Amino acid sequence: MKKHNYSAGPCILPQEVFEKSAQALLNFNNSDLSILEISHRSKDFVAVMEEARNLVLELLGLQNKGYQVLFLAGGASLEFLMVPYNLMKVNGKAAYLETGTWAVNAIKEAKLFGETQIVASSSDSNFNFIPKNYEIPTNADYFHCTSNNTIFGTQMKSFPKTNIPLVCDMSSDIFSRTLDFEQFDLIYAGAQKNMGPAGTTLVVVKEEILGKSGRTIPSMLDYQKHIKAESMYNTPPVFPIYASLLTLQWLKNKGGISAIEQKNQAKATLLYNEIDRNPLFKGTAAVEDRSIMNATFLLHDENHTSIFDKMWKEAGISGLAGHRSVGGYRASMYNALPIESVQVLVDVMQALEKAV
Amino acid sequence: MKKHNYSAGPCILPQEVFEKSAQALLNFNNSDLSILEISHRSKDFVAVMEEARNLVLELLGLQNKGYQVLFLAGGASLEFLMVPYNLMKVNGKAAYLETGTWAVNAIKEAKLFGETQIVASSSDSNFNFIPKNYEIPTNADYFHCTSNNTIFGTQMKSFPKTNIPLVCDMSSDIFSRTLDFEQFDLIYAGAQKNMGPAGTTLVVVKEEILGKSGRTIPSMLDYQKHIKAESMYNTPPVFPIYASLLTLQWLKNKGGISAIEQKNQAKATLLYNEIDRNPLFKGTAAVEDRSIMNATFLLHDENHTSIFDKMWKEAGISGLAGHRSVGGYRASMYNALPIESVQVLVDVMQALEKAV
Repeated sequence: MKKHNYSAGPCILPQEVFEKSAQALLNFNNSDLSILEISHRSKDFVAVMEEARNLVLELLGLQNKGYQVLFLAGGASLEFLMVPYNLMKVNGKAAYLETGTWAVNAIKEAKLFGETQIVASSSDSNFNFIPKNYEIPTNADYFHCTSNNTIFGTQMKSFPKTNIPLVCDMSSDIFSRTLDFEQFDLIYAGAQKNMGPAGTTLVVVKEEILGKSGRTIPSMLDYQKHIKAESMYNTPPVFPIYASLLTLQWLKNKGGISAIEQKNQAKATLLYNEIDRNPLFKGTAAVEDRSIMNATFLLHDENHTSIFDKMWKEAGISGLAGHRSVGGYRASMYNALPIESVQVLVDVMQALEKAV
Repeated sequence: MKKHNYSAGPCILPQEVFEKSAQALLNFNNSDLSILEISHRSKDFVAVMEEARNLVLELLGLQNKGYQVLFLAGGASLEFLMVPYNLMKVNGKAAYLETGTWAVNAIKEAKLFGETQIVASSSDSNFNFIPKNYEIPTNADYFHCTSNNTIFGTQMKSFPKTNIPLVCDMSSDIFSRTLDFEQFDLIYAGAQKNMGPAGTTLVVVKEEILGKSGRTIPSMLDYQKHIKAESMYNTPPVFPIYASLLTLQWLKNKGGISAIEQKNQAKATLLYNEIDRNPLFKGTAAVEDRSIMNATFLLHDENHTSIFDKMWKEAGISGLAGHRSVGGYRASMYNALPIESVQVLVDVMQALEKAV
């Protein structure tokens, strides 16, 4: 039985990505070599990197607009550090929006480099909403926000206008919805949600904002060095990048971001409608800030936990447990999750209602 | 036709690693899930990480001796930076042996942190030998060396005795030969030679040397933070680590490092004997410092280049071109390369001798 995989990340990817990448492990591009044993400088892999970088710009609508694409390593957590290293001036300052665990971690690293102002925070209410109507200091070197908060099930529906560089951690919702991506100066995202498997990190950066911090940046942390080397400053994570390319190709063939957004909206509507209708459940995030990627919800009566857990597991659902800081359940509905899997969950929730 | 893969890295891995990891992409551990879509916190992957960390200690003979094993991301190039961040004291100094391109790059990053003394260098002779009889300053915070130089085909046959921490970049020869690994305080290695595919970096560190630099270390660069999190401070590169585990399991089943060392010696002897015997060829590295992993050699007469290149390509050999800084040829004979592939190369060299 194929599972209904609600894992928060690493997460479900398209079946064809599993099949094509398994084939490439045995014989890549009919080279009689595995993708694991070829040089990253080989013609075949250079073509993978080039296509992946171009496809990112194409899908985001950012071609010929001064952006560079990098596939790095280390995860979004390394970007928490690279962003201030590259953008915060010596004796400068940065502005951050604090919307969840990952924002907290990003702020912690930025503080190592200089004054880090938290413009607004929802920490007092366990991050169950997105702060609005805050002011961004015009003298900061950049403003940083997190577009989607997997743990707390919230998502920024719009982004502030500001004249300073806008930096966004889009790890958990990039490629899931249309946005005017030109409003961002730097976007980063760990691959392991909608882009591919764990092991590579996407960075999309407007080149003109770089080179101004006045800091001496270690080579591996310097975006300009990676750009100059066309994302091959050192041996890149070959397989994770190849599997990401396959995922991006799948997305393009599905009609791109606007087409997948419709499907994601339909999935989220189906589940949130049930959460709101079913008297046994309640959502944890403010309704207007609900994430279309990660729906967090609780049972009103904790005594129903064991029967509900038994029921969804028997239905082939996996990865539905909520993060320990929120409890309850988290349904992560990334791009590759079919709406049929959401229907299975809704059916289980309705069956629970009848059973108790 | 299966290729004879002499790629310098990423490089040949055991065929069973390709096959087992392809299977895991389709159905990992009979979970009905791909290894690409499972949580890194899942029981199945935590077991992978634990087994891989333990197997490294077992293969190196370092169990219960105060060492910790990490599987990080970013490649050895990120370690060039992490080593001084963690080990070089504020206002301290470090000592480096300069034996090739990677040592040069490591030294460059160390200089960002403080005084970096080059105790000896073979740069004046294009790194074709390993310096000996140098003095290591006893007041340095650590001594750093590179055990094997892929580009120049040299290898350290012994390591200096010193009372300061001994740090070694073993990217290109770890797990290929027996050594007293206890003499090292910190070993690091990009996976993509003898350990697995590109995308993860091995760090083996004696825990007692950490926490003494007096620096505030960004989280992702702090070995102690990674140790505390059992190598899961953030989402690790799941697939590269799994494929590394499969490679380590293969090595153990083959009899471990001492057994593979015998095979590696036999391969290297076969090829170097031919380089020395065949009047058309000459080796580039000092004989006593020749690497058993990477044999670098030239044609005496460059006019033979096109015919030789045609012959080895027709024999199914790939990845034999030398690095541009040395020219000629480089035969990388990592653990997974069978001696039959070396015999094919020797046969081609002998056929060239008859043909010209």
